[in-house]
Amino acid sequence: MKIHNIRREQDICSYTFEEFSELVKSFHGYASPGVIIGGYMVDMAYRILPDGGLYNAISETSKCLPDAVQLLTPCSIGNNRLTVVNLGRYAVTLYDIYTGEGIRVSISSSKICLWPEIESWFFKLKSKKEQNETRLIQEIREAGISICSIIRVKVNDGILTKHHRSGFSVCPCCQEAYPIEDGEMCRGCQGETPYEIVDNAIGQDTIPDF
Amino acid sequence: MKIHNIRREQDICSYTFEEFSELVKSFHGYASPGVIIGGYMVDMAYRILPDGGLYNAISETSKCLPDAVQLLTPCSIGNNRLTVVNLGRYAVTLYDIYTGEGIRVSISSSKICLWPEIESWFFKLKSKKEQNETRLIQEIREAGISICSIIRVKVNDGILTKHHRSGFSVCPCCQEAYPIEDGEMCRGCQGETPYEIVDNAIGQDTIPDF
Repeated sequence: MKIHNIRREQDICSYTFEEFSELVKSFHGYASPGVIIGGYMVDMAYRILPDGGLYNAISETSKCLPDAVQLLTPCSIGNNRLTVVNLGRYAVTLYDIYTGEGIRVSISSSKICLWPEIESWFFKLKSKKEQNETRLIQEIREAGISICSIIRVKVNDGILTKHHRSGFSVCPCCQEAYPIEDGEMCRGCQGETPYEIVDNAIGQDTIPDF
Repeated sequence: MKIHNIRREQDICSYTFEEFSELVKSFHGYASPGVIIGGYMVDMAYRILPDGGLYNAISETSKCLPDAVQLLTPCSIGNNRLTVVNLGRYAVTLYDIYTGEGIRVSISSSKICLWPEIESWFFKLKSKKEQNETRLIQEIREAGISICSIIRVKVNDGILTKHHRSGFSVCPCCQEAYPIEDGEMCRGCQGETPYEIVDNAIGQDTIPDF
C-alpha cells in the first residue's frame, strides 16, 4: 500500500523509483539504467502534455527506451501505438494521435557531463565490468529529468496515417495467410525468412501431453 | 490465489485463460484475439523446447503477436531479445540463443476453416462491427493450439549475432549522441526524423512543478 500522497521528484508516472525499478526488472530482465532514465523521460512528456489526450509514441532507438514506453503508456509494439524509428538517438516523443502535436524528450549530451557514471555509461567509455552500477543508478535517480532536453514537435503524416491491409491471400508455397499486397507469394517464400526449416513434420500427435 | 494445481488444456503458460485475458487487456489495451491466440502459440513452443534453455523470439508480424511474446517470455523489444521480422505471417519462433535451433508456431490457414468466427476474423472477411467478439473469443478458447502448425527451424547467423556499436559521437548539428558508424552527422539530421520541430525553447524553467 502506498503510504505517501505527495508526489516526489523521483516518482516515475504512478510509481516510486523502487516500484518502477522492480517493474523494469520483471519486464526487461534487470533494472536497466536505460529503461529507468526512459521512465523519467516518458514521465516528463506526460507532465507537459494536456491531460486527457490520446497519445502515441515514437522511440528513436530500439535499445531500452521502447520498454519504458511500453511499461508507462498504453502504447506497445503489438498494438502499433509505439513506433520505433531507429535513428540511434536516445529520444522519445509522445504525440496526439489526431493532430500529431507532441513533446520530444532526449538525453542531452552536454548536460550529462555533470554526472560521470551516466556519461561513461551513455557514451560506452567503460566496459560493463568497469562500470559502477550502484553509483550509476544513484546518479540517474539524483539527475532525473535534469539531463534531458525537451522540444515541441509535430509528427509527420506518414506516422499518423494508419495503414490498413487490403486483404489476405493464402500463399501457394507455404499455405499460410499473407497480405495480398506482398505479391503472388508471401515475403517469407520470396526468400526473407530468417531461418531454415529443419523438420516440418511436427504434428499434433508429437505434441507433449497437456 | 490459484485454487488448482492440475494444468488444464486452456492454460497459457503460468496463467489461466481469464488471467491471461486480463493481462492482455492491461498491457495491450483490450483482450485482443490475436494476442490470446499468440499466447497459445508461445505456450506451445515452450512445451516442445527443452526446459532450462535460453530462448529468444522472432515474430513474423508486428500486429498483436509481439505482445504475447513480451507478456509470456523474457524477450522484449527494448532488451533486443524479440526481433520483429515483418513478413505479414502470423508466426512466432522461439530459438536457443547459442545454437539457433528452435520451434516455429504459425496459424494454419487450412485448420481454421473449422472455426467460422476465427476464420472471418483472421482473413478480415467481416468488419469489426459485424464480428461476434464473444463467439470469437470462445472459439479461440476451444480451438487453442489445434489451429496451429509447428515446425523445427534453425535461425540464421544474421539474427544470432549480436551487433555491438563501435562507439558514439556527438552530432555537430543536433548536439545529440549517435552511433559513430552512421556518418558525420546523425541519421535524424540526415533527414530521417519523422516530425518537424515546432518549438525548441522548452527549458527546465517552463517545466511544470513537480
